[in-house]
Amino acid sequence: MKSSLTIVVVVVVVVAFILVSYSCKNQRNQQANQMESIQKELIFPKGEKITNNNFVGTAWLEGLLDADSLNHIAVGSVVFEPGARSNWHTHPDGQILICLDGVGYYQEKGSPIRVVNKGEVVNIRPNVLHWHGASADTEFVQLAITSRLEGVTEWFGAVSDEEYLGLKR
Amino acid sequence: MKSSLTIVVVVVVVVAFILVSYSCKNQRNQQANQMESIQKELIFPKGEKITNNNFVGTAWLEGLLDADSLNHIAVGSVVFEPGARSNWHTHPDGQILICLDGVGYYQEKGSPIRVVNKGEVVNIRPNVLHWHGASADTEFVQLAITSRLEGVTEWFGAVSDEEYLGLKR
Repeated sequence: MKSSLTIVVVVVVVVAFILVSYSCKNQRNQQANQMESIQKELIFPKGEKITNNNFVGTAWLEGLLDADSLNHIAVGSVVFEPGARSNWHTHPDGQILICLDGVGYYQEKGSPIRVVNKGEVVNIRPNVLHWHGASADTEFVQLAITSRLEGVTEWFGAVSDEEYLGLKR
Repeated sequence: MKSSLTIVVVVVVVVAFILVSYSCKNQRNQQANQMESIQKELIFPKGEKITNNNFVGTAWLEGLLDADSLNHIAVGSVVFEPGARSNWHTHPDGQILICLDGVGYYQEKGSPIRVVNKGEVVNIRPNVLHWHGASADTEFVQLAITSRLEGVTEWFGAVSDEEYLGLKR
């Protein structure tokens, strides 16, 4: 009788033990998923996939504010997937890039590639030939602030893999 | 003998059960703390505490880019603690505010207070009398983009508690 009782008690407690461990593991997994979604949370929507020929790879644009007669500054958020980059181009009135997340590359013609990390600002001077995009392994989320006082962006050729990999300036 | 065995087994299993529950709870707490620190992570440093008389409450400014002869756009990040706000003021060339985190208030003279959430943009027209700051309960992290083409910001009186609480426009 006592032996049966021992077995029953042990089985009940062991089953409870397994249930608690399982529930604990599930809670951990749920929290891990939640953390991942917070880390991935963008401030702005990803926007529309860029389909023009001025980019290599996949990039997304969310226009935040257009210039008009009272405001000459356009603001947009661009997400470059790893490896994606703009073609070489110039801005007649310069442009300011701010890295909101990820890791980017920025290069002016003749200079080495600059790695741009979260929180860093790139001050692109008027008519300086340059390109920007994601690093090879990590996406790049940038805010682009562009003065529209003078002319339009001029586009040049694509950034070759040799240039992108830093083998050629 | 068997009775003693039952007691020993039950005690051992119950202690193990308590230890697993405790360890599980600790892991949950550690993950919760980690989540909080991710949510609180700022893109830019908080910067310097603003000590001039153009603000009520505690606000912090990190200058990101100054205007100069080639770039007329200044960019800064401002953190307003809950309840903190600017005085009433105007910008001769307008200003663009972008909410990076938290919840802010924005008001133009004569209009109701606008609540500004993460990712939202405020397009402040030239010479429009306005103020901005944090909501009463939540801090407000804003990017301020200011054209420095014409004149300087003009400052007026402080935003009273009556105005801040939306009782008076």
